[in-house]
Amino acid sequence: MPRPERHVFVCTQSRPPGHPRTSCAERGCAAVYEEFLWQMQQRNLFNRVQVVATGCLGPCSEGPNVLVYPEGVMYAKVGRGDVATIFDEHLEQGRPVQRLRMGADFW
Amino acid sequence: MPRPERHVFVCTQSRPPGHPRTSCAERGCAAVYEEFLWQMQQRNLFNRVQVVATGCLGPCSEGPNVLVYPEGVMYAKVGRGDVATIFDEHLEQGRPVQRLRMGADFW
Repeated sequence: MPRPERHVFVCTQSRPPGHPRTSCAERGCAAVYEEFLWQMQQRNLFNRVQVVATGCLGPCSEGPNVLVYPEGVMYAKVGRGDVATIFDEHLEQGRPVQRLRMGADFW
Repeated sequence: MPRPERHVFVCTQSRPPGHPRTSCAERGCAAVYEEFLWQMQQRNLFNRVQVVATGCLGPCSEGPNVLVYPEGVMYAKVGRGDVATIFDEHLEQGRPVQRLRMGADFW
């Protein structure tokens, strides 16, 4: 594949139920990851966006975490319903979604 | 953790032995990933560099693949012995290691 314009790194880290750090898996990242793949397919953005599952990105309490480069924008508490907005505004238009960005206390 | 200066994304994708796409796991990425973690610890770069394991980054035939952001530099066929060089030149000094970069035919 060609080099994409943007990489979307979706944390898919899992931990045992009740683990004190919690995890993006426990917080619903599987549905978020699937939605990123689905939206990419529906919008036919294979050559512009690459979606990559990752291990831990760090701020577990704020997950599901999604990190977009080259801007280095970290999104917190991403729900399935937020994914279309991230595509509409950030991945297609280059404008990060301010209301979904992780707070400075965490990252 | 604070936002790091750089993210190192190390592909740890596995596929069955003999799979036609091969995989970074089959090509030795586990040792490469461990070496990134070890070098980060030895150099005490926890606040500057974050090493993240990922699923497939794309150019499987050229693995193990390592992608460094914010520069968006993709390294190909990374061996354990290359990791210290990537730290010395790129992660600590900001100069990507040209000889390890993936060729334009692949990315």
